[in-house]
Amino acid sequence: MGDTLLIPRLTIIGVGLIGGSLARALRRAGAVGEVVGCGRNEQSLRRGVELGVIDRYTSDPAAAVEGADVVVICTPVSAMRAMFTAIRDHLAPQAILTDVGSVKGCVVADAQAVFGSLPERFVPGHPIAGTENSGVEASFAELYERRRVILTPHVESDAAAVDRVRTMWQCCGAEVVEMGVRHHDEVLAATSHLPHVLAYTVVDTLASMDDRAEIFRFAAGGFRDFTRISASDPAMWRDICLANRDCLVRTIDEYVDNLQRLRSALIAGDETTVFETFRRAKHARDNFYRD
Amino acid sequence: MGDTLLIPRLTIIGVGLIGGSLARALRRAGAVGEVVGCGRNEQSLRRGVELGVIDRYTSDPAAAVEGADVVVICTPVSAMRAMFTAIRDHLAPQAILTDVGSVKGCVVADAQAVFGSLPERFVPGHPIAGTENSGVEASFAELYERRRVILTPHVESDAAAVDRVRTMWQCCGAEVVEMGVRHHDEVLAATSHLPHVLAYTVVDTLASMDDRAEIFRFAAGGFRDFTRISASDPAMWRDICLANRDCLVRTIDEYVDNLQRLRSALIAGDETTVFETFRRAKHARDNFYRD
Repeated sequence: MGDTLLIPRLTIIGVGLIGGSLARALRRAGAVGEVVGCGRNEQSLRRGVELGVIDRYTSDPAAAVEGADVVVICTPVSAMRAMFTAIRDHLAPQAILTDVGSVKGCVVADAQAVFGSLPERFVPGHPIAGTENSGVEASFAELYERRRVILTPHVESDAAAVDRVRTMWQCCGAEVVEMGVRHHDEVLAATSHLPHVLAYTVVDTLASMDDRAEIFRFAAGGFRDFTRISASDPAMWRDICLANRDCLVRTIDEYVDNLQRLRSALIAGDETTVFETFRRAKHARDNFYRD
Repeated sequence: MGDTLLIPRLTIIGVGLIGGSLARALRRAGAVGEVVGCGRNEQSLRRGVELGVIDRYTSDPAAAVEGADVVVICTPVSAMRAMFTAIRDHLAPQAILTDVGSVKGCVVADAQAVFGSLPERFVPGHPIAGTENSGVEASFAELYERRRVILTPHVESDAAAVDRVRTMWQCCGAEVVEMGVRHHDEVLAATSHLPHVLAYTVVDTLASMDDRAEIFRFAAGGFRDFTRISASDPAMWRDICLANRDCLVRTIDEYVDNLQRLRSALIAGDETTVFETFRRAKHARDNFYRD
């Protein structure tokens, strides 16, 4: 473990699917020396050591960040502020701080509130990757391959810190892009938070119907795919949706407007509008994905 | 090809994914003698012969049903009435007539209008199976394995005819259930037609946004699954949604009510309602599927 390593000591706070997969990928790439895990669930941290994801752990964030070159906070967005407070006075001078929060506006606001101003070596980040599974057991080194990671550095961000975080994700096989905090939150509201809200709501709607015992039996294969994201962790998604509620509510409203237009077309027997809506959607999706 | 075959001569009108897969599955089961295909696209029918899905074809429905023991109409629901009219005077006395339409109310109404009353040997059916692909090239013998097929026989339905259609689907590996026409259309509005409408609308909403060129780039894996059904044939789904618009619009309204309740909870910062909605949905889905 020499000085040539990208990250001699890495601290992961929150060793679940996202943090665990990051550690695995960096180990595989030979980019890290020691990996220190931190979290509240000791059993899960022990499992992380057994699986070789982390080298050691502590439940004390202040101790966990001691001497770390890079600290990655992978806790739910609702826990970010408390975590910033817990580590603020314990970060090494050279430490680079980053996170993986799905909403960036709230994380940046929390950092600003706790640190007084945004630290130069704080680089907010968000890997666009995940599965409906949670926990360190679900982590795997390939999670970030050919995925995108968005960084939202601020005007005072240290260029070398941004570079190191970018290189860290590239070592995991990801493509790194930068964008503004607000733009990030709008894009993610549309592509991620809205779909989760819609999927959760459709399953909940069916589950509340009178014949719920049998209704799911008649769902075809497409329904299984369509509702897969509703198996995601409800506490995590509650936090994400509430943290990004401004953007999300605007996106929901836009969506409901479009849905009501389609509803009116159905009632009016307006074949053209129904067909054109479906055709445009198929065209857009076919252009983007090649299943 | 003796008398012991379940279906000595089978006519499939509309040899695409659904009709083609039925023919393939029945052949594999050794349940059919000759398979006659009928459709409007001669190139596709020729391909059906090349692939061994059908033995011969004609574009004339009257000729296609001649001497057939079982006739399965696999055309879009919007073409059912014209097809009933075309074959009405040409069915053999022993012929059993069935269909695979995704909406049963309109098919039954069309049959009643064309035949005067519902034929005794007409057994409306609907296999709950499919993929987002279309056409005879996409057909495969396993499509119906462990899938459900709903039959909606009427009070005058001949018991032997219902039995034969049930056995036909069981030969394909399907589980056959019977239910009323209205109930079928309500259940399918919820489990199939609503999800398609929601998926088409979400993709169309994103595709109409200002930054559409880049927005899909930031969609994670979950989005790909969530929107897979929006790659389905838009003309077929226009027909299905319009044919079942009464049930579908009621289901859309119920869905939008639930979505608006969630929207209000987001604005109010009501963590409990958001969490409980997501938790109930995850619970319902986890109970039904074991991914």
